[in-house]
Amino acid sequence: MTAMKDLKPQHFEWEVDGTIARIRLSRPERKNPLTFESYAELRDTFRALTYADDIDVVVFLPNGGNFCSGGDVHDIIGPLTGMDMKGLLNFTRMTGDLVKAMLNCGKPIISAVDGVAVGAGAIITMASDIRIATPEAKTAFLFTKVGLAGCDMGACAMLPRLIGQGRAAELLYTGRSMSADEGERWGYYNRLVAAADLEKDAMDIASRIAAGPNFAHSITKTQLNHEWSMGLEQAIEAEAQAQAICMQTQDFHRAYHAFVAKQKPVFEGN
Amino acid sequence: MTAMKDLKPQHFEWEVDGTIARIRLSRPERKNPLTFESYAELRDTFRALTYADDIDVVVFLPNGGNFCSGGDVHDIIGPLTGMDMKGLLNFTRMTGDLVKAMLNCGKPIISAVDGVAVGAGAIITMASDIRIATPEAKTAFLFTKVGLAGCDMGACAMLPRLIGQGRAAELLYTGRSMSADEGERWGYYNRLVAAADLEKDAMDIASRIAAGPNFAHSITKTQLNHEWSMGLEQAIEAEAQAQAICMQTQDFHRAYHAFVAKQKPVFEGN
Amino acid sequence: MTAMKDLKPQHFEWEVDGTIARIRLSRPERKNPLTFESYAELRDTFRALTYADDIDVVVFLPNGGNFCSGGDVHDIIGPLTGMDMKGLLNFTRMTGDLVKAMLNCGKPIISAVDGVAVGAGAIITMASDIRIATPEAKTAFLFTKVGLAGCDMGACAMLPRLIGQGRAAELLYTGRSMSADEGERWGYYNRLVAAADLEKDAMDIASRIAAGPNFAHSITKTQLNHEWSMGLEQAIEAEAQAQAICMQTQDFHRAYHAFVAKQKPVFEGN
Repeated sequence: MTAMKDLKPQHFEWEVDGTIARIRLSRPERKNPLTFESYAELRDTFRALTYADDIDVVVFLPNGGNFCSGGDVHDIIGPLTGMDMKGLLNFTRMTGDLVKAMLNCGKPIISAVDGVAVGAGAIITMASDIRIATPEAKTAFLFTKVGLAGCDMGACAMLPRLIGQGRAAELLYTGRSMSADEGERWGYYNRLVAAADLEKDAMDIASRIAAGPNFAHSITKTQLNHEWSMGLEQAIEAEAQAQAICMQTQDFHRAYHAFVAKQKPVFEGN
Repeated sequence: MTAMKDLKPQHFEWEVDGTIARIRLSRPERKNPLTFESYAELRDTFRALTYADDIDVVVFLPNGGNFCSGGDVHDIIGPLTGMDMKGLLNFTRMTGDLVKAMLNCGKPIISAVDGVAVGAGAIITMASDIRIATPEAKTAFLFTKVGLAGCDMGACAMLPRLIGQGRAAELLYTGRSMSADEGERWGYYNRLVAAADLEKDAMDIASRIAAGPNFAHSITKTQLNHEWSMGLEQAIEAEAQAQAICMQTQDFHRAYHAFVAKQKPVFEGN
Repeated sequence: MTAMKDLKPQHFEWEVDGTIARIRLSRPERKNPLTFESYAELRDTFRALTYADDIDVVVFLPNGGNFCSGGDVHDIIGPLTGMDMKGLLNFTRMTGDLVKAMLNCGKPIISAVDGVAVGAGAIITMASDIRIATPEAKTAFLFTKVGLAGCDMGACAMLPRLIGQGRAAELLYTGRSMSADEGERWGYYNRLVAAADLEKDAMDIASRIAAGPNFAHSITKTQLNHEWSMGLEQAIEAEAQAQAICMQTQDFHRAYHAFVAKQKPVFEGN
């Protein structure tokens, strides 16, 4: 079992506060672009989180007023133009593996967005469970602007389920920015908060979730992802099994006894 | 063929007005909680509705200013804490079977929500086809507050398709109430009406639907549920077949002849 | 390879402006109803577009202040009432084939809606990628009003993903009009514009998309449709492969070299 609080990543910032991990991408002077190295290290970190007991929630935060400027043009796009198909597929699969690792890590992920969140940066927010933003947040799935398709790291599957098929299509075909107001109206952001309150608000949500029944939360995350393409009958049976598992946890018993004693339950995640 | 208008349920209120059935959950002094018995009787009633010719639409109404407070803590949660896995799965499957029976009953279901609609009460509104509410309605998928996961009776599959994946995730992880205004903005409620008008408005919608081509309505309900996880090509072929069936009904001919005669069609559901 | 710009359809209007095709349905004096012949010719046109290199985007426009009044009562509904099942299924499959051809044509489709867009007319807008409308647009999935089910040409699958499951259910059960304001709030229309600006605005969006990497756009369209019912893991792998294909296009290289030279890329669609 990895002790994630001791993690010392080389390519992004990592802080642990109680059982909440905070990530900031690096290089604010360039609006925190991703590189081959930071992609890989993020992927490995979320894979390790699957087995970690000391982290309950992960929060992505901006750095220097911006979230992330996406894949670096010089460090990533340049080298890609010289690769053969095998190399290209290695890269697109690695980026997809980051999203898969985020979906499969078993911990709710909150993205707190300020300034620029574009390209792969927009994808990181999309692959999170909950998103809040400042009124200045600009999110763009701008793959089309670099000559690519909108289908990057799951965007053609996930964005339509967040904001609707028609709005997603426009953003993916045009690459235009979604404003913070649009994002809130459309269900992309759960709410907007002033920049001064962004980190505190994200941590408040994270704390409230982390105080919850964390084993059950990990089951919620599993089911939200696994029922994505199930039929309704299959989803209902899957939930009957999943919830029966949760009914054998101590947290379920704790909640009942606290209720009977007119107290607030204290959950322990087992 | 059951004559549903003569039903005398023991654990909820049942009235039939023309071909519209009205259900109110019982025990308003406790905000109409569900019990093992009312779950089972509701499930059996919706299963029977599948074969009933005398009911076209079902309306769930509040009772005493509240919709439903969910599974009763003393009558349900207490006993669950003492059950083994077989007993737990029997219970979660029974609750899932209520949702399946609502989806498969072949009749449009309208929920009219006032006051509290939480836990399994929220699920009953979610599994309905159309929802209206008063400004005072408070809907919470609060399973997490009793130590359980958000995946209850199909919520991780159905809630995202009603209000978007991001809003659903927040409600399911935090268990917080969705206000009536949020519910209307997000597409959960089809509209809000004053408490004094709630029942009348629900019955107006029900009457308009019940006057429609009811065989065709039952096909609409089937397709809305069965195309949930189909590919687009499969869904389009399924609809070609389903609509061709409807084109052989007398109601289709009645509509055409009424149109030619510049009259309003009178549908008979066959 | 068909030269689509030279197309002379008999049953609808077709103009080509650069690489943008514009379609107006015929017979404005009857609000542009569809007939057996126009259905078939539209289907064949979109099938031909799959292989056409001279068209990048298709725009549907109103004609005489209305979009389309749907299947003609005299020309279509009358004859259908006299057909046997084989004939009916031939018809419903042909209408579904129009939607399939629109989904599979590889070109983004924009619908610009004014006035009436009902029945099959509403379906044409639904099967488009992007929709804009005037405040006077009235869209109704009114199949129920002619005695049929809401499941027509894919509506039970597609409408819920555009506007949410609950709003779609109401429109399909009641057949009522969706106002332009509702359509914009709910994500059906990407935006509303004054009637005087409708055509120009639609052509602006079309031009912006047509200036993009059109091979990549066709991949975006493929993925938006094919990931509809994929699991998340499958969608992410599918996008890794699809995007790797796009990374071998010249347009991707053009974008990179333009960026390095601080120029705007000129895409050529290969």
